[in-house]
Amino acid sequence: MVIMGIDPGIAIVGYGFLDLRGNSYKVLDYGAITTMPKVPLADRLNLIYEEMNELIEKYKPIDIAFEELFFNKNVKTAITVAQARGVEVLSAKKSGAGLYEYTPLQVKQALVGYGRATKAQVQEMVKIILNLSKVPKPDDVADALAVAITHGSSIKFKESFRMI
Amino acid sequence: MVIMGIDPGIAIVGYGFLDLRGNSYKVLDYGAITTMPKVPLADRLNLIYEEMNELIEKYKPIDIAFEELFFNKNVKTAITVAQARGVEVLSAKKSGAGLYEYTPLQVKQALVGYGRATKAQVQEMVKIILNLSKVPKPDDVADALAVAITHGSSIKFKESFRMI
Repeated sequence: MVIMGIDPGIAIVGYGFLDLRGNSYKVLDYGAITTMPKVPLADRLNLIYEEMNELIEKYKPIDIAFEELFFNKNVKTAITVAQARGVEVLSAKKSGAGLYEYTPLQVKQALVGYGRATKAQVQEMVKIILNLSKVPKPDDVADALAVAITHGSSIKFKESFRMI
Repeated sequence: MVIMGIDPGIAIVGYGFLDLRGNSYKVLDYGAITTMPKVPLADRLNLIYEEMNELIEKYKPIDIAFEELFFNKNVKTAITVAQARGVEVLSAKKSGAGLYEYTPLQVKQALVGYGRATKAQVQEMVKIILNLSKVPKPDDVADALAVAITHGSSIKFKESFRMI
């Protein structure tokens, strides 16, 4: 079954597509949708929406897992990123896939087994679990793969959290 | 020329359609798209997107004016509302209309001529300018009409702010 993982964003939207086969993953694709800060917001949202639609159309994921947004500082940045997440969720919803979201804590626990794991530890586990030669860059891509793996684990353990 | 005003939201999206004819307005429609808190976020976003598409298709506004989101307290609420604003901007963008946004300060100055005007003063001016028998309810609807009037004023004074 094909799982899409998304690290939501406005400048960089990390994504990864994994085919979960029994206990292992086949990596189908990963990368980032990027938009430039100088482009008007509406155009950035439209570009993200269209590129996400194309990716979903290509890989037809059964489930789509989002990393939850968490901000406690810059509300202005949070609002911009959240607007992008809105169109990302809309694109996912229109595909008919099952939608899930996981907190950074859940991702760390799923990959490293430890809620206070560092970013580097999570990324190293992404590399190992997916048999990659190196950690995917930028971080957003590794994070997207990490949330896809988290969803895969929750399926394996029958602990899916259908939240959105 | 038809102007759509939007007060962005997730539970209540206020909207108003005004036909600006010279110096006065013909009120075409106003109301609110509403979604229930218990409905999953993705479904709420999808419902808002589809209802906005229908309204825009019906009235074919030349310009769409958004009230700017402003939050300084509850980041969690801000993130939810901003996700809805994202799909509202996407719907507006896809219509091909000109997109504009105005701050609450700009709305107050345009309607009351005074940046510290109260909500009640702004709403009273909406009623007077549009020749309504009473102030539209809920507040979100009056706010949407207020931002549409603000855009109308900025057109009249050739002071449009194309921002999004």
